[in-house]
Amino acid sequence: MILLIANLGSTSFKYKLFDMDPTRLGDPAGEQVIATGAADRIGQGRSEWKVETGGQKKEGTTDLADHGQAIDLHLRELAALGCTQATKLDAVGFKAVHGGPISGAVKVDDHVLATMEQFADVAPQHNPPYIAAMRAFRKQLPGVPQVAAFETAFHQTIPMARQVYGIPHEWTTKLGIRRYGFHGASHRYIATRMKQLAPRASRVISCHLGGSCSICAIEEGKSVANSFGMTAQSGTFHASRVGDFDAFALLKLLSPSTGLDLATVWKKLGKEAGLQGLSGVSADLRDVKQAAASGNAQAKLAIDAFVESCRHYVGSYLMAMHGVDAIAFTGGIGQNEAGIRAGICAGMDFAGISMDEAKNASVAKNAEARIDAAGSKAEIWVLPTNEELIVARQTVEVLTKTQR
Amino acid sequence: MILLIANLGSTSFKYKLFDMDPTRLGDPAGEQVIATGAADRIGQGRSEWKVETGGQKKEGTTDLADHGQAIDLHLRELAALGCTQATKLDAVGFKAVHGGPISGAVKVDDHVLATMEQFADVAPQHNPPYIAAMRAFRKQLPGVPQVAAFETAFHQTIPMARQVYGIPHEWTTKLGIRRYGFHGASHRYIATRMKQLAPRASRVISCHLGGSCSICAIEEGKSVANSFGMTAQSGTFHASRVGDFDAFALLKLLSPSTGLDLATVWKKLGKEAGLQGLSGVSADLRDVKQAAASGNAQAKLAIDAFVESCRHYVGSYLMAMHGVDAIAFTGGIGQNEAGIRAGICAGMDFAGISMDEAKNASVAKNAEARIDAAGSKAEIWVLPTNEELIVARQTVEVLTKTQR
Repeated sequence: MILLIANLGSTSFKYKLFDMDPTRLGDPAGEQVIATGAADRIGQGRSEWKVETGGQKKEGTTDLADHGQAIDLHLRELAALGCTQATKLDAVGFKAVHGGPISGAVKVDDHVLATMEQFADVAPQHNPPYIAAMRAFRKQLPGVPQVAAFETAFHQTIPMARQVYGIPHEWTTKLGIRRYGFHGASHRYIATRMKQLAPRASRVISCHLGGSCSICAIEEGKSVANSFGMTAQSGTFHASRVGDFDAFALLKLLSPSTGLDLATVWKKLGKEAGLQGLSGVSADLRDVKQAAASGNAQAKLAIDAFVESCRHYVGSYLMAMHGVDAIAFTGGIGQNEAGIRAGICAGMDFAGISMDEAKNASVAKNAEARIDAAGSKAEIWVLPTNEELIVARQTVEVLTKTQR
Repeated sequence: MILLIANLGSTSFKYKLFDMDPTRLGDPAGEQVIATGAADRIGQGRSEWKVETGGQKKEGTTDLADHGQAIDLHLRELAALGCTQATKLDAVGFKAVHGGPISGAVKVDDHVLATMEQFADVAPQHNPPYIAAMRAFRKQLPGVPQVAAFETAFHQTIPMARQVYGIPHEWTTKLGIRRYGFHGASHRYIATRMKQLAPRASRVISCHLGGSCSICAIEEGKSVANSFGMTAQSGTFHASRVGDFDAFALLKLLSPSTGLDLATVWKKLGKEAGLQGLSGVSADLRDVKQAAASGNAQAKLAIDAFVESCRHYVGSYLMAMHGVDAIAFTGGIGQNEAGIRAGICAGMDFAGISMDEAKNASVAKNAEARIDAAGSKAEIWVLPTNEELIVARQTVEVLTKTQR
């Protein structure tokens, strides 16, 4: 099965093209990446694009009006480089974010698109570009099925007592106001990979720290808690989204003296907050670190608060699972920032857990590595995530189930 | 020093009258309660009131227009029962809630009242009755100084990295949008009492669970984290206030299809949420328990979610203090609900902590008791709180400092 797994931003398009053998899922030989590509500035003129397949690369600059034109260009360029499978797509798979009551992996149809639109208000950075791209791809590739693998799917196993807020219960049952959890593809990958690396580690805390950040408690391969709540703006600090916040603070933000209106507050909390907002420097941790090293106290505070927000959830998940057997770090920050990992795991002797500082400091860029100290009751790992592989597997499952 | 320590609701007035010897603070002989009293339905007609002093009680029913009339009645009735000190008040002390930038214990003046008014929007159940009562008392007892001991004071030692939200930093510095923490008088009492009972326990998790609930991490007698955030609506579940909530869920609650406006949402989150909202039964845990025992699944879920919200913070504070030496339960629920205590401490073997089930189940009503199992690395205690005593001590300190 030839699957294009898309990773979308409002003006960007990245993908991996997989050749998946439905009878050999989980076996690297049955799950091959045969091409990758990307384009930026879609709809803004002068897109830079690149494709890579079979050891060959090509790149260029052109105008791409929408995501439909982007996929059309890429499939043509891949075919021109000899990737014949690019013209024989069996499906396009999407790591979709918020489908409210629709979770799991499903074929994209009008009902799915309409439901994603209903939840676009609470996923303003995520749902709109996916809806637009799904429509554009459908127009461009009318015969190719689309599969949405929702980021909430992995978290459907979270016990109800950890899903609900202390709100009038009909808001939960009728309006869908509850904790959903996101980053499902990444945490599912970590669960799967940890099972291979440490088969006896039945309780895993997975820390996906990147532009978006979340911590997940995984017991026997199933999510039992996730730091994201109703929306992907909540939980730990993010690069530019607020994370956990006191809803009633809005009353103060909206008082006449501030000159702020609700639309402005939502925008700032969703796009100018997190590391960016608190540091006043950048949404990129590397910049914030540099500023902190140069003596910027606000940048230092932002990093410390980021670490605290992660420790908060790690502690909560120790309680949720009555301890932990493995802690895994993934995502751009989780994989590459030894200082953040050390900060999150500091002082865990009370639970018999300790990190090997030297191992932690010497993890190669984007490599798998085990970094716990001798005698630690929990293994500690750095694991590059592979969300596309999870979405590809889910897409295969949807297609084969449909065909039966 | 004769101090009346007031505990106010919007229509209620409770107090203890203390005879405090400033040279013997901390010594029971120097901190005597010489009278208590209460009145309800203030401003609503037909108030029931009662006073108790020197072994005598008196009660009655009358109209009390405001808190000024209530205090006037009580002081007269106490004097009539032979409590001569009631006519010689040195000060009235208040356990005030939200003073924003004003914290600690301070003499109440126009500036303090104006600041409390500025923060009334985010403390809608707490600040307005205190402001009204302070004004009424001032009119009724013009020569008697008033001291406000803010509930945030004990939490001023929380490290900055745990105070800040991931928001534009000028919102923190200019608008005061940060985690304040409340229940300071109660947690300070627990810190003080634990120091007497277990002098070596330098790290304490204090669980104040009542109509309002909060969990506090106390290290070397100082608060280093509290579950309340910017407002007393946040943190763990409360009897009828929401606790932690995803601010962005408001976008969904305010969408046209719900028929809800912002004022209604705030009201429901502040008065019809928490145990009340989720259970649909009652804000009183005893009623919710009874309903759960009768098979009401929603009531059962409310109790389970309440316990989860507490465990979430206990875990976080294990991380904050790198372990814990003592866990203390106080407040109406904390002191009297063995099942909730057991739920919160379940499965803590990973940190070497365990409760003695039999001891936990047999704690006498409102008694002090130690309930950890033999070999537990942390002591576990049930401790009746004494917020009025803390406020009385703080009031003495303010008065004697002023006199110097």
